[in-house]
Amino acid sequence: MTTSEKALMLHEAWKGKVETVSKARVASREDLALAYTPGVAEPCRAIAQDPEAVYKYTIKSNTIAIVSDGSAVLGLGNIGPLAAMPVMEGKAVLFKEFGGVNAFPICLDTQDTGEIIETIVRIAPAFGGVNLEDISAPRCFEIEEALKKRLNIPVFHDDQHGTAIVVLAGIINSLKVTSRKREDCRVVVNGAGSAGVAITKLLLTYGFSNITMCDKAGILYKGAEGLNWMQEAMMDVTNLERKSGALADAMKGADIFIGVSAPGIVSQEMVASMKKDSILFAMANPVPEIMPELAKAAGARVVGTGRSDFPNQVNNVLVFPGIFKGALEGRAAAITEKMKLAAAQAIAGLVADNELNEDNILPEAFDPRVADVVSRAVKDHIV
Amino acid sequence: MTTSEKALMLHEAWKGKVETVSKARVASREDLALAYTPGVAEPCRAIAQDPEAVYKYTIKSNTIAIVSDGSAVLGLGNIGPLAAMPVMEGKAVLFKEFGGVNAFPICLDTQDTGEIIETIVRIAPAFGGVNLEDISAPRCFEIEEALKKRLNIPVFHDDQHGTAIVVLAGIINSLKVTSRKREDCRVVVNGAGSAGVAITKLLLTYGFSNITMCDKAGILYKGAEGLNWMQEAMMDVTNLERKSGALADAMKGADIFIGVSAPGIVSQEMVASMKKDSILFAMANPVPEIMPELAKAAGARVVGTGRSDFPNQVNNVLVFPGIFKGALEGRAAAITEKMKLAAAQAIAGLVADNELNEDNILPEAFDPRVADVVSRAVKDHIV
Repeated sequence: MTTSEKALMLHEAWKGKVETVSKARVASREDLALAYTPGVAEPCRAIAQDPEAVYKYTIKSNTIAIVSDGSAVLGLGNIGPLAAMPVMEGKAVLFKEFGGVNAFPICLDTQDTGEIIETIVRIAPAFGGVNLEDISAPRCFEIEEALKKRLNIPVFHDDQHGTAIVVLAGIINSLKVTSRKREDCRVVVNGAGSAGVAITKLLLTYGFSNITMCDKAGILYKGAEGLNWMQEAMMDVTNLERKSGALADAMKGADIFIGVSAPGIVSQEMVASMKKDSILFAMANPVPEIMPELAKAAGARVVGTGRSDFPNQVNNVLVFPGIFKGALEGRAAAITEKMKLAAAQAIAGLVADNELNEDNILPEAFDPRVADVVSRAVKDHIV
Repeated sequence: MTTSEKALMLHEAWKGKVETVSKARVASREDLALAYTPGVAEPCRAIAQDPEAVYKYTIKSNTIAIVSDGSAVLGLGNIGPLAAMPVMEGKAVLFKEFGGVNAFPICLDTQDTGEIIETIVRIAPAFGGVNLEDISAPRCFEIEEALKKRLNIPVFHDDQHGTAIVVLAGIINSLKVTSRKREDCRVVVNGAGSAGVAITKLLLTYGFSNITMCDKAGILYKGAEGLNWMQEAMMDVTNLERKSGALADAMKGADIFIGVSAPGIVSQEMVASMKKDSILFAMANPVPEIMPELAKAAGARVVGTGRSDFPNQVNNVLVFPGIFKGALEGRAAAITEKMKLAAAQAIAGLVADNELNEDNILPEAFDPRVADVVSRAVKDHIV
């Protein structure tokens, strides 16, 4: 039986990968009087008097919404809210199993930016945080920004920031392995959607200064046609030389390639044109931009992918459970740039110097220390 | 320690009475590949091809939203969405414990009728049903009607229909105990909000024909000032003699009094003015419209209240878990009048003839048969 067949069979058996389970017993009249009427009136009154008490008495203290409109799901594209459900449930499973965070999938029957924002604002009272998921760019940027302004709970678009944080963690260790300094590196990011933009921003924040973004049309440059508003804004901080051309042109002489794009679009010639001992994160899934053995044969030193069957898996699960665990435990009102940098450094730091090598730049997804160090990094930077 | 003190302490210990728990294990790479990527793509594709498959592969098959705007919570009134959370969580506990139904509390940060409707429509994909809760009248009527038209999943306002069904169940058995026929009875319903309106409607559907509704201002009659649109509509089917006056006037010569109103507003004199062997459901909580011993001393034969420490507790928990259990198991698109009547009859039928007496007209809230017979009644009437 293939993984696909087995997955389908299991999903039918599960009929939903999460369930809501009671923490309160209701096996007697007295139980009922405490968990429901008349006892329940007491915490209600306490919250009515002091809204902050909602964190003391309800699920808001440790529960987030995983919200998607199904517009950009995995490699499947715009499959809509119903078909997105298995992914959101899977994410809910990972939040709970790795971070101890209760998460409930909310799939929205609208892809209108304004309606998505309004809906999330209105359902926010029950939740201590909002994880946005699989919402297509550039709408995801506008939605996240608006929610950050309007809500006093943390909002985090995992496709953007989870990816950016784990990439930065891997890059930090790749720099060590290849004895590079961030300020000397030329970086190419291929794919200018939610992940590509967020990776670029976080690398800039970390101290990289020479980044070129590419997309299907090749190198993005100021004034190029067809850029969305976010890509245009990125042109003020990337490709300052205003190069144009194809991806292959961008990669000539580059130190680092980061792909969040399409299978097989990087050739061995392109890798050979990069600097010696180059670093490639080829994260198209399940088939990367270039297979690791080909990239290495062409001169790459460190190759990361999204896959668990190759070394250096670049996997968001290293990030999102710990981010919300920390944000909820510390009652953070937002996930800040400082928290993201600290989370990346904390993940990178889990690979001890004597274990660090080109095939071991990131901790395992199942490393039980990960969510705790990420959580601590977040909590240490709550202002 | 009082119940209130104990309830507050327990709520602080629980920090939320429900949690989301994973049904899928993710203890290995293979687990992860089945519950998340890449395996999860398979059920996604299946649902994208056939939206009905969402019931086969996701939580939609057995999960409902409990939605409130916090505008009419228990006896507490308009305390808002945050303070309503403990009640909605309590309801979620009861849905799971009594009906096996996963339920998640959604408290809305809006009390605008149109916004509530739009929000619920937009979050519907993840849910197999919507239980409306503690939304004030007459907005609750409009919201329920609109949602029934726009959604293809069952929508049920428990304050209305859960109450109406359990009241009808109790009345069916009270008629037996007092040897009355429904068509001969004069009924007074005091309280013309969500519960009072729904009780009146269901009693009419069951075959009662002489019902007078009262409210703070006394008897409601066609043309009276201050009626909302729903109360006006009710005047076409109640108080056909167009009586006016006080509650005391309505009760003179009545067979049945149903109170969903305020503590202590029924006097012994008012009960004495009713027909012999009268039936009173005095459901104001925690202090009923008249205490059972006073009502009985004044001539009442059957007295029900909302309290568990008196005989004949009239408790919605007899209804809502089974209603959604049946609706979800049978994939009902709506909760119909026939289902409500059948549910009431099923609940009444659980009290065997040789156990039926004036102090035992309803099954116990903890009777494990209840949710099953209600569920079966719903499923038997799916068209």
